[in-house]
Amino acid sequence: MRILGIDPGLGITGWGVIDYDGYHLKYINHGTIVTNAKNDISERLNQIYKKMSDIIEEFSPNEVSIEEVFVNNNPLSSLKLGMARGASICCAGVLGLRVFEYPPNKVKKSVVGVGFASKEQISAMVQILLNCGTVKADAADALAIAICHAHNKTHY
Amino acid sequence: MRILGIDPGLGITGWGVIDYDGYHLKYINHGTIVTNAKNDISERLNQIYKKMSDIIEEFSPNEVSIEEVFVNNNPLSSLKLGMARGASICCAGVLGLRVFEYPPNKVKKSVVGVGFASKEQISAMVQILLNCGTVKADAADALAIAICHAHNKTHY
Repeated sequence: MRILGIDPGLGITGWGVIDYDGYHLKYINHGTIVTNAKNDISERLNQIYKKMSDIIEEFSPNEVSIEEVFVNNNPLSSLKLGMARGASICCAGVLGLRVFEYPPNKVKKSVVGVGFASKEQISAMVQILLNCGTVKADAADALAIAICHAHNKTHY
Repeated sequence: MRILGIDPGLGITGWGVIDYDGYHLKYINHGTIVTNAKNDISERLNQIYKKMSDIIEEFSPNEVSIEEVFVNNNPLSSLKLGMARGASICCAGVLGLRVFEYPPNKVKKSVVGVGFASKEQISAMVQILLNCGTVKADAADALAIAICHAHNKTHY
């Protein structure tokens, strides 16, 4: 099974693709979709949507995994995150993919073993688990979200 | 010019279509997209996206008008509104339509003449301006947003 993990954000959306055969994790690719804050919100959302379409077309994942919403105290940040999340989820859904959501502490636990971990710890563990090169924080989180789905999928 | 006005929401998204020839407003249609809170967020967003696609296909608007974000004090509400807004904006953008945004007080001013107005006042004025039958609040707001774009478009 091929899994696309998404760490959505209006400025930076991280993505990571892995394969999972029930026993082994295999790294396929990762990257980030970066939008320019100078552009209209509609342009930025469309950029996310279109690049996500390209990624799904290129890597043909079977399922999509995304972190459950982290609601912070800033309503404007929540709104921006919501719009970016909406763009990614819509894209996956329109292309016929099921989207699975996991709470942040479950994602962390599935790569670091505990519910709380720094960005650096997650990045380091993702690289060890997937035996891949250096991965920046946003894409590392996306790969962690994909790994989390791989681990939890077995219990379905 | 045909304008699609959208009043986005995760539970209810209002929409309204009008024609504007530079002098006269003409009512075309309106409605709401309602999603079930029992469904997954991804299902709900896809429902909004797909129904919005159908509306755009059926009425072929030239431009889309949407209210600028009203950030309230509840981050979870902001996030939900953000996702719903993201779905609608993406849909319009993917189908090649430009999306224009207007602040709530400008929308109100363009139908009621002042920046503050009750839902009932907006609904009543929209019905008078468009010479159409009874319109429920969510769709009335969407029609008001479309009217706002018609009025402001002349100054572009």
